[in-house]
Amino acid sequence: MKNNKAPLSLPVAEGYGTLDGEFAASTARASVLERWRARKLLALTGDPPLRLVLWGGEEIAACPGAPIARLLIRDRGALFKLLRHPDLHFGDLYSLGRIEVEGDLVGFLEAAYRAAAGARVRKHLKSVLDWINRPRANSLTGSKKNIHHHYDLGNDFYKLWLDREAMQYTCAYYPRAEMTLEEAQRAKMDYVCRKLELKPGQRVVEAGCGWGGLARHMARHYGVKVRSYNISREQIAHARAQARAEGLAERVEYIEDDYRNATGTYDAFVSVGMLEHVGKDHYRTLGEVADRCLTARGRGLIHSIGRNRPEPMNTWIEKRIFPGAYPPTIAEMMEIFEPNGFSVLDVENLRLHYARTLAHWLERFDRHQERIEEHFDRAFMRAWRLYLAGSQAAFTSGSLQLFQAVFARATDNDLPWSRAHLYT
Amino acid sequence: MKNNKAPLSLPVAEGYGTLDGEFAASTARASVLERWRARKLLALTGDPPLRLVLWGGEEIAACPGAPIARLLIRDRGALFKLLRHPDLHFGDLYSLGRIEVEGDLVGFLEAAYRAAAGARVRKHLKSVLDWINRPRANSLTGSKKNIHHHYDLGNDFYKLWLDREAMQYTCAYYPRAEMTLEEAQRAKMDYVCRKLELKPGQRVVEAGCGWGGLARHMARHYGVKVRSYNISREQIAHARAQARAEGLAERVEYIEDDYRNATGTYDAFVSVGMLEHVGKDHYRTLGEVADRCLTARGRGLIHSIGRNRPEPMNTWIEKRIFPGAYPPTIAEMMEIFEPNGFSVLDVENLRLHYARTLAHWLERFDRHQERIEEHFDRAFMRAWRLYLAGSQAAFTSGSLQLFQAVFARATDNDLPWSRAHLYT
Repeated sequence: MKNNKAPLSLPVAEGYGTLDGEFAASTARASVLERWRARKLLALTGDPPLRLVLWGGEEIAACPGAPIARLLIRDRGALFKLLRHPDLHFGDLYSLGRIEVEGDLVGFLEAAYRAAAGARVRKHLKSVLDWINRPRANSLTGSKKNIHHHYDLGNDFYKLWLDREAMQYTCAYYPRAEMTLEEAQRAKMDYVCRKLELKPGQRVVEAGCGWGGLARHMARHYGVKVRSYNISREQIAHARAQARAEGLAERVEYIEDDYRNATGTYDAFVSVGMLEHVGKDHYRTLGEVADRCLTARGRGLIHSIGRNRPEPMNTWIEKRIFPGAYPPTIAEMMEIFEPNGFSVLDVENLRLHYARTLAHWLERFDRHQERIEEHFDRAFMRAWRLYLAGSQAAFTSGSLQLFQAVFARATDNDLPWSRAHLYT
Repeated sequence: MKNNKAPLSLPVAEGYGTLDGEFAASTARASVLERWRARKLLALTGDPPLRLVLWGGEEIAACPGAPIARLLIRDRGALFKLLRHPDLHFGDLYSLGRIEVEGDLVGFLEAAYRAAAGARVRKHLKSVLDWINRPRANSLTGSKKNIHHHYDLGNDFYKLWLDREAMQYTCAYYPRAEMTLEEAQRAKMDYVCRKLELKPGQRVVEAGCGWGGLARHMARHYGVKVRSYNISREQIAHARAQARAEGLAERVEYIEDDYRNATGTYDAFVSVGMLEHVGKDHYRTLGEVADRCLTARGRGLIHSIGRNRPEPMNTWIEKRIFPGAYPPTIAEMMEIFEPNGFSVLDVENLRLHYARTLAHWLERFDRHQERIEEHFDRAFMRAWRLYLAGSQAAFTSGSLQLFQAVFARATDNDLPWSRAHLYT
């Protein structure tokens, strides 16, 4: 890895301590009031099948029977913070080791999501992993800052746990359960290309290209020319170097700029995993860019994390991991298309594919834990592990969705008569 | 046919005359003011490639070059009415023969749609086929009245031009272009069943069943038991008789009642071509019915005419043909699912399939024109012909869409890993 210093240092907020062990772990037994608070925490979060273990060793469980996991709360301040603002503090406290999950972390988080959804406590109380604050604004400069926060962590960090071939930091596609991460990412890219009906010689514009894997895949396997926009400097540098190394530099152009500055006309408009960072207020603009860029017979595809109903991103993830992120509902996504004369041809929900992708990422992340700890502090590592596990749990429990929407101009009658070509 | 008397007598509004020939056709030449008005009519409708022919023989064209068709305006009152409220009066005047289209009716209507969309004149002026008024309320009693208006015209009337096997008065599915109407309706029913992942022994509830063809198809070919709701007495009577004749009475139950009164729990909830009649205010209720009826692993499918952006149904169609009808956008449809804990798995737009279905219907309608005229008055026949041709044009021009949405409970993880099973 390039950086020997942690580019993201936790904690960001004051009053947490810095690393596990450095906070004042409580040793006295919990008081009656504290035990009552712990029970209240379980009730507020929908009584998940979990066991709380307080600093003095007291165990508190909501449900009878075997718990999925044990949540150790290692000091009274942590309990207090969890009660006050669980969706924010859980992540920070976990990162610092002031709380610990004994047992299956993903299973624990899934149970927490399910209990919260089942108890319908969200409206008033906010559960451990509930979502509240509005995301940060994604103006042209705001976007650059938000994207830098996440994607310029160091390419080497992501290389450790993303697929080796194309470094796709987005949902893969597993039409067959036994596929490897590499196979599933290739399948995802092919699926996107088939949905876009790419033909040799066509031109494609890409809004948000990550490390450029999809653009290179399109150029190599579908004979198209691609122009890709991204505001992450590290990603663009990697993407360009890779295109040169693979002899694709003539057919793939990576531009370090905001998608809103895209120029030219194209046969296809594609955006995989960028909409989450665009912000609701800019959906109409995104549609205007597609309208400006697409030919009369052009095809578009937008691939994004989403929701069944409108809810902001989890506060902790939005604050510490993905500043400015917001997962839209299908209805909200329509703001891209409705005002801009587009017709939506196909919306597919690939929720469980993202859960499987995240399981593969987490497995590799864990395999490289030692290497990651050499370069980042422990809190950072724990925060990322929680983020990957929590995201997997969010997709498994149905809290998050993954939508792929295909669109064309309303007047385009040159449409395929069935979707069978996607599956042959 | 059962009725020797027209059940729907046009005109409904006063001041039209009753049949072509009975109005006072103008004979004098059109004045300068009237010719100016005719040019204004073309301009208001986006200057379509059409030629207007006034009662005195004067021809007025917006575009140079060969027109797609000629619109004969046979009296000055008709011109005046068209200018005042074109979307309503065009249909009535055409039905009565006070205006006539010489040439390809569908082509004429398509050109009118395209010109209106292209000129973006809709917001202020309303074009010949534009949409304005709010649909009539679909309360429990209002629905019954609205549905009676359309569907109790006489089964024999619909038999003349719908598919012979299942009498599907909804969009067919043409994965192969050469399919007959019967093949395409069978393909549609199979497609719906595959999207619902029906398995033998399952129970299905259907909201709005028409003449019951889909329910019988499901029972016969997929081994399921179906309970279907419909408030059209004539349709229910036909459906029951057909089920008895086909030996399916034990497995298909037709209930003459509103879908909102559905009881029981089912493995699948299906509604094909009813949402258009439900009314936006009742989408949430429709979702509640699905929520009440579906098991934890249940699948739902809603098939409906729709829009790319919110617009009411064409005034004339809403008034004369489909009282209470409203075609929703995808965003509006989400009101069914979002508040009721559903996850949308798949939305497919089958717009051009409806255009082809309507072309097949219109062809049969024209073939049986004489028989229809024996039983209905000429204005009725012309009104229906305009409605079929206008609907075809609306789908071809992209003014109307056809959405099939598949949904499941948000917590259901027993989902197929690809849609390939729909195409094998």
